[in-house]
Amino acid sequence: MITALAGGVGAARFLTGLVKIVNEKDLSIIVNTGDDIGMFGLHISPDIDIIAYTLAGIVDEEKGWGIRGDTFHCLETLRKFYREAWFNLGDKDFATHIFRTNLLKKGLRLSEVTAQISHVLGLNVKILPMTDDKFETRIITEMGSVHFQEYLVKREAKDEVLGVEFLDAENANPAPSVIESIREAKLVTICPSNPIVSIGTILAVKGVRDALRRTDAKRVAISPIIAGAPVKGPADKLLRGLGFEVSAYSVAKLYSDFLDTFILDTADAAEKDKVEKLGIEVKVTNTLMKNLETKIALARAVLES
Amino acid sequence: MITALAGGVGAARFLTGLVKIVNEKDLSIIVNTGDDIGMFGLHISPDIDIIAYTLAGIVDEEKGWGIRGDTFHCLETLRKFYREAWFNLGDKDFATHIFRTNLLKKGLRLSEVTAQISHVLGLNVKILPMTDDKFETRIITEMGSVHFQEYLVKREAKDEVLGVEFLDAENANPAPSVIESIREAKLVTICPSNPIVSIGTILAVKGVRDALRRTDAKRVAISPIIAGAPVKGPADKLLRGLGFEVSAYSVAKLYSDFLDTFILDTADAAEKDKVEKLGIEVKVTNTLMKNLETKIALARAVLES
Repeated sequence: MITALAGGVGAARFLTGLVKIVNEKDLSIIVNTGDDIGMFGLHISPDIDIIAYTLAGIVDEEKGWGIRGDTFHCLETLRKFYREAWFNLGDKDFATHIFRTNLLKKGLRLSEVTAQISHVLGLNVKILPMTDDKFETRIITEMGSVHFQEYLVKREAKDEVLGVEFLDAENANPAPSVIESIREAKLVTICPSNPIVSIGTILAVKGVRDALRRTDAKRVAISPIIAGAPVKGPADKLLRGLGFEVSAYSVAKLYSDFLDTFILDTADAAEKDKVEKLGIEVKVTNTLMKNLETKIALARAVLES
Repeated sequence: MITALAGGVGAARFLTGLVKIVNEKDLSIIVNTGDDIGMFGLHISPDIDIIAYTLAGIVDEEKGWGIRGDTFHCLETLRKFYREAWFNLGDKDFATHIFRTNLLKKGLRLSEVTAQISHVLGLNVKILPMTDDKFETRIITEMGSVHFQEYLVKREAKDEVLGVEFLDAENANPAPSVIESIREAKLVTICPSNPIVSIGTILAVKGVRDALRRTDAKRVAISPIIAGAPVKGPADKLLRGLGFEVSAYSVAKLYSDFLDTFILDTADAAEKDKVEKLGIEVKVTNTLMKNLETKIALARAVLES
């Protein structure tokens, strides 16, 4: 049994490789829901959808999110009704959000709805929202505290990050199977996702960090930072804003209380010693996932750790 | 001031002519909401949308409903999530329903939401839902009682009509301005709509029928039945199912307690005497609205009654 902790695009790319070499039924993916947002009254779960669409083979690979070849007629029309319609949602994508919102309104939990969506998309992996409860990642900027999506999409990550807060985190319980999937796994892999707002959120859910520390599973993380910069997203701005150096080492340090192995990119081989001094085993390999072969090779490196 | 009682397609066609020869600001349209239905968790108001889209010039004229040139990508995708997705909703059309549902969830009334939608569509007429409260038209068939849309769209009006029921009608109050618009009008026109499930529903809302009886306005109805058949829709099946003869006369009789003038099609000139015996003035003219000119001519006939 393998359990992955995942954010959005980087995690989805890695998992595309992983599912080629493991039995999908053996894989549980705990996904960040701190980015979830209400838009036009609909419940959007950006990271869950990125993971699900990617593994279902329908993601818009160029953008990394949304459905390939989707149109935007509904959103264009909604722009007449709403001054603020900065979140991009395609017509086919809307179907997911309408379905999710309707089931949540009927009283189902996000984890139950996610299972239904996964089933419809033909997935055999288990996608687990980190929590069924409210948990909202907010970025503190000079403008005040804004929802993470507002910081990232609307304001294009342009504001200086003064801090990060996780609203309602203290009341957010792990969704069903989250703790068990960590406890019972042979391998827990931390995907190359943002250590603050993708993995950091999952670690902030009650009991998750503790389960990671206690599990007998091998715990392997892939650095989302290559040569001092994230491959995608604002991890550099967030790390810097919180006073961390922007480096693979910083990420390893954030996980050092539970991590067994850290996978460093060859570009960061010089950090090997420093990470090892944290008591973490280090494996140096190519972590830039340019195509399916490099994704599979990276997945193999994780499995062989 | 002119007030119209309206269903969907037939009413919308007539009103297209009317707004060409009156000041739009002088026109209030009380619209049937008995057909409103929840679909995928969204609140759909079919007749309000038909009237609004038609007057905004964006309706799909061939179908009579929906938005011209709309695509159906969201609905096609929803079909993967729902076994039942028989109600046709286009991608642009979904924007209206998402907006409406969101505002209703925020506590606004249907009449307030409708005013906002009308504003966004650039309309100057006042579209008034007959009620802001629940009111559901159901058709009793051998299968039991089904929502009107299920009878009409899903089952294509194939079932024999054993009866009609208006759920929650006794608790449905008229929306703001409905009664006033009837009381203060100089002319109240009953559009050529289904007398049972479009006009009959409006008449069943508390106080409406009474206001029609008492108003000083001239009350003019256009027959929706021409030569023993409705131009569109299942009015024949409904009239027959409730034990009425399918004729213009039957419709006049249903309105005879408040009507001043009934506009008969030339094809039904033979019914003139019979209708006059109900104490109703009769005007015979062409009521088949083939193009804008015939719509305007019919509107003029109503104004000159």
